[in-house]
Amino acid sequence: MDERVREHAAVLVDWSARVEAGDDVVLSVGPDAHELAVAVAEKLGERGANLLATYSSGEITRAYLRAHDGDFDENPAHELAVVENADVYLSLGGGRNTSATADVPGEQRRSYNEARADIRERRLGTRWVSTVHPTRSLAQQANMAYEEYQDFAYEAILQDWESLADEMAQLKEVLDAGSELRLVSRGTDLTMNIEGRTAVNSAASVAYDSHNLPSGEVFTAPDATEGEVTFDVPMTIRGESVRNVRLEFDDGEVVDYDAEQGGDVIDDILETDAGARRLGEVGIGMNRGIDRYTDNILFDEKMGETVHLALGRAYDACLPDGESGNESAVHVDLITDVSEESVLEVDGEVLQRNGVFRFEDGFDA
Amino acid sequence: MDERVREHAAVLVDWSARVEAGDDVVLSVGPDAHELAVAVAEKLGERGANLLATYSSGEITRAYLRAHDGDFDENPAHELAVVENADVYLSLGGGRNTSATADVPGEQRRSYNEARADIRERRLGTRWVSTVHPTRSLAQQANMAYEEYQDFAYEAILQDWESLADEMAQLKEVLDAGSELRLVSRGTDLTMNIEGRTAVNSAASVAYDSHNLPSGEVFTAPDATEGEVTFDVPMTIRGESVRNVRLEFDDGEVVDYDAEQGGDVIDDILETDAGARRLGEVGIGMNRGIDRYTDNILFDEKMGETVHLALGRAYDACLPDGESGNESAVHVDLITDVSEESVLEVDGEVLQRNGVFRFEDGFDA
Repeated sequence: MDERVREHAAVLVDWSARVEAGDDVVLSVGPDAHELAVAVAEKLGERGANLLATYSSGEITRAYLRAHDGDFDENPAHELAVVENADVYLSLGGGRNTSATADVPGEQRRSYNEARADIRERRLGTRWVSTVHPTRSLAQQANMAYEEYQDFAYEAILQDWESLADEMAQLKEVLDAGSELRLVSRGTDLTMNIEGRTAVNSAASVAYDSHNLPSGEVFTAPDATEGEVTFDVPMTIRGESVRNVRLEFDDGEVVDYDAEQGGDVIDDILETDAGARRLGEVGIGMNRGIDRYTDNILFDEKMGETVHLALGRAYDACLPDGESGNESAVHVDLITDVSEESVLEVDGEVLQRNGVFRFEDGFDA
Repeated sequence: MDERVREHAAVLVDWSARVEAGDDVVLSVGPDAHELAVAVAEKLGERGANLLATYSSGEITRAYLRAHDGDFDENPAHELAVVENADVYLSLGGGRNTSATADVPGEQRRSYNEARADIRERRLGTRWVSTVHPTRSLAQQANMAYEEYQDFAYEAILQDWESLADEMAQLKEVLDAGSELRLVSRGTDLTMNIEGRTAVNSAASVAYDSHNLPSGEVFTAPDATEGEVTFDVPMTIRGESVRNVRLEFDDGEVVDYDAEQGGDVIDDILETDAGARRLGEVGIGMNRGIDRYTDNILFDEKMGETVHLALGRAYDACLPDGESGNESAVHVDLITDVSEESVLEVDGEVLQRNGVFRFEDGFDA
C-alpha cells in the first residue's frame, strides 16, 4: 500500500474526526475507495473505535431511483437509526464514473432527498468528515494522468493543517467583525449581509467545525443577498457540465438565472425547495496547495484566489446559538475566480484585491 | 449486464426474501458483488422497499481486527440499531481473496464475535438471506475457469424452487416423525436424537425458514449425539484448508477430535464457547443441480448424496415454539460424502442407502 494512503487515513481519523475509543463510526465507502477504507479500518482498530462500513455507489443509487415509482417512504427507520446512533460519519468518496447517476430524472432525485431530510439532519449532527480516495475516474475528470492526480490529491490532503488554520484565522477575524460583504468581479456585483454570523475557519477538522478533507477555506452564512454573480469556474454537477452560470438576486432570492451550459441542472436545483433559491454559504478559498481546477468541488472551492457561493442549506456553525440559517434539501456550491479584476470588500474596506488579502505581501490597496 | 445477474436478483428479492413495499432492507455487499448489488437495488426500487447498502470486506475486517487491542465494545449501538430496524437482511458475498482474513488470530476473531452476540441474534430475527455473486476468487477456490464457474453457480441458483420444495417435503415428513437418526459410513457411526424437532425444507426462501440461495437441503437440530463421524469433503474454513476431520461425541459433546489438515482451525472453533462443542444442525443435501464440490459451504452442503453437521448454533425454526436449541457464537458446517458405503437410518429403518432415498427410483432396501 502507498504509504500516503495510511497517512491520509491517519489525518482523517485523528486530525479531522478526532476519533476516540468507544466512538461508533460509520465508514461510507465508495466502490473504488476500498484501499483507503482498509487503511482507515486499521486506524479505527488502533483507536478502539467501533466500525460499521456502508457502501456508497452511484450505480446502486441510479438503479434504485430509476426503478422506484417516486413515492419514497420518509426517513426509513434502519437508515435513520444508523445516523442517530453514530458518533462519527466518515465518507470516503471514490467511484468509477463521476457521471454514474447522470440519467436519473431530477424530480426523482428531489423526491428521494426530500423524503430523507431527518437522516441528513442527523448525519450533520455527528462528527462527519467527507474526503475522497484519488481514483482513476477523478483523475479523468481532472484531465490528469492517474499518478499525476495522486500527487495532486495528496499534496492537498497531507498538509500542515495547524499552520494553515493560523493563517486562516486572520480572515475569520475580519468576517466575524463585518456586516456587509461585497464581491465585484467580471459579471459580478453582489452584496451580502453577514452581520452576527460566525465564520468557520475550515481547517479540515471537526474541532474547527470543518468537515472536508482537504479543506482550506473560510466561510460564513450570508443573507439578504442583492445583485448578480457569474461563476466562471467550470464544474460538473450531478454528472453534467455546468459553465458560466449567472444568478441574479433580489431580497436574498434568485429572481433570474442563465447558464452557458448546464442550465437544466441549475433549474433542477432551484426547484428543490424555497431554500434552494437562497444562499447558504459564501466561502473564500485559502488553500494555495491546490494549484489547479480539477472539476471536483471538494478541491476546487478550497483553492486560493477563488470565492464560492452555495445555494441551499446553511451550516449551523455560522449562526448564533439556537438560530438556524437557510434550510434546504440541497447545498450546491458554485465557484468564481477572483485572481484578476476582482475586489472583495467588507463594510466598504478592501479585504482582497485580485486574489491578494490585505494582510498578505503584495497587497495593492 | 449478464441477464442471469438480473434473474438472480429477482429470485433473491421475490422468491427468497419475499420483499414487499415499505420493507427496510439491508443489502450487505462484498467488494466484488457490486454488479449483483446493482441488479438487486433495481429490484428493490421496483418493489418500493427501502435500501441501505453496507460493505462487507474481509480486508477491512482483517485490518480492523489486527489493529484492535481485543477489548471490543459489546454490540455497538449504531450496528445494533441497523438490524433492530431492518425487516430484511440480504448478504451478497463475493470478495477478491477467500483467504483475506487468514492471518487474523483466532482469539481476536472469537472476542469480536462474542462481543456481537445481540447483533447476530437480531439479524437472525430478520428475513435474512445469504447468497454469493460468482467471482473470480470463488472460481479459483473451486479450481474452475471464471465462465465455467458462472455457469455452475447460476445452474444451482436459477432453479425451479417450487418443484424442489415438493421433492424435499418427503424427506421432511420422515424426519419430523422420527426420534433417532443414525449415520453409518466410512469412519462414521453416529446417532442423534431428533425427537420433537421440526425439519426445515430448505427451499431457498424465508417462507420455508430457509435462508440460503442456493439451497436444497433438509435440516434439523439434533442433540444427545453419540459416536464418531469423519468429514471427507475437503473445505476451506476461515481461509485455511481443512481435510478429514474426525469428531468423537459423548453425551452430545465433542470429547475428542483429529484432522489430517486444519486441526488448528477446528481447535479455534471448539474453543469459542460451550455450544461450539455441540451440534446445531444435521443437514441432508438434496440439490442434484450441484454436481461437484467447489470448496464453498453455500453450495457444497446442498449437494445431493452428502450429509453435513454444524458445530454451534441451532436454528430456532427446528425447535418447538418457545424452546431454543444449542447456542453459540459460531455455526460451522462440515460435510461427508454418503454416495457409497453409507446408510442413513431413522428409528432403525433405512431412509437412504448410498445416496438413494427410499422414496426414489433405484433404492436398494
